[in-house]
Amino acid sequence: METNTNTTLQTVITPEELLAHWQGHRNLTRRVIEAFPEDDFFNYSIGGMRTFAEMVMELLGIAGPGIKEIATAETAQLIENVEHNNKKAQILELWDKATKDIDTYWTQIKPEQFHDTIKSFGQYEGTVWSSIFYFIDNEIHHRGQAYVYLRALNIEPPFFYER
Amino acid sequence: METNTNTTLQTVITPEELLAHWQGHRNLTRRVIEAFPEDDFFNYSIGGMRTFAEMVMELLGIAGPGIKEIATAETAQLIENVEHNNKKAQILELWDKATKDIDTYWTQIKPEQFHDTIKSFGQYEGTVWSSIFYFIDNEIHHRGQAYVYLRALNIEPPFFYER
Repeated sequence: METNTNTTLQTVITPEELLAHWQGHRNLTRRVIEAFPEDDFFNYSIGGMRTFAEMVMELLGIAGPGIKEIATAETAQLIENVEHNNKKAQILELWDKATKDIDTYWTQIKPEQFHDTIKSFGQYEGTVWSSIFYFIDNEIHHRGQAYVYLRALNIEPPFFYER
Repeated sequence: METNTNTTLQTVITPEELLAHWQGHRNLTRRVIEAFPEDDFFNYSIGGMRTFAEMVMELLGIAGPGIKEIATAETAQLIENVEHNNKKAQILELWDKATKDIDTYWTQIKPEQFHDTIKSFGQYEGTVWSSIFYFIDNEIHHRGQAYVYLRALNIEPPFFYER
């Protein structure tokens, strides 16, 4: 075991590492979207659940706007529907835009902000860190569900550990 | 927005907060196990995937032993099967034992250790933080899959946001 001697790293995780961790997850989610046949992405579901397209629109509604809200302190609206014309390409374009938005606004979050108390989307109370963890955990949760959809469709999902 | 003025909290997340975050997730996973009918827990699956019992045995194999390995630096073996006699009660007992083990060994992890490079279970290279995040993310991933199993079985899963 190597011992890290850099005292600035005597912390669980740095903001930069948390960003990279999340973007790694988002990269995997993007590949899960790509793995779906277009029709199944917008129409397939199990047990009365939402389609993966509907879940992804929720994720798009949360990620970019949620981080922008934290960075700017301007209340964000939770919008869980976007124009997509049943085209994955349109969803993927929005996904990539969100990737850039997250990178941009993340740099505006100050390290001392992570324990501030906020109301995400004007209503969900937590700290900055707990809100961001919720965004990430919620994405992992729904993407796990998409893995079942893909398996039920006889499609091999991307490896979970590849980010 | 309240600004936190405690300089010791000028960090993304403290070790104590990460522990509470994970144990909150583990509490939810426990309730998902409870929500399964005994027979379905051990036998139901979709698309050729593992049963939730098999996934939970993987989680049990990772969580307690993984944290003990980080705390003690003694290489752990990855054991993904336990005696259960098709009884959820036996799995839940092991779950609760793991909860205590995690609490116990967590206090032995030093704050400056989180950026050390380790090989979890003697083989998976990463930092202490990235390994622990993997343990948590992997649990969320599989629990999300269990939500689909429950929905397909016409059973309402616990709320994702209740920990």
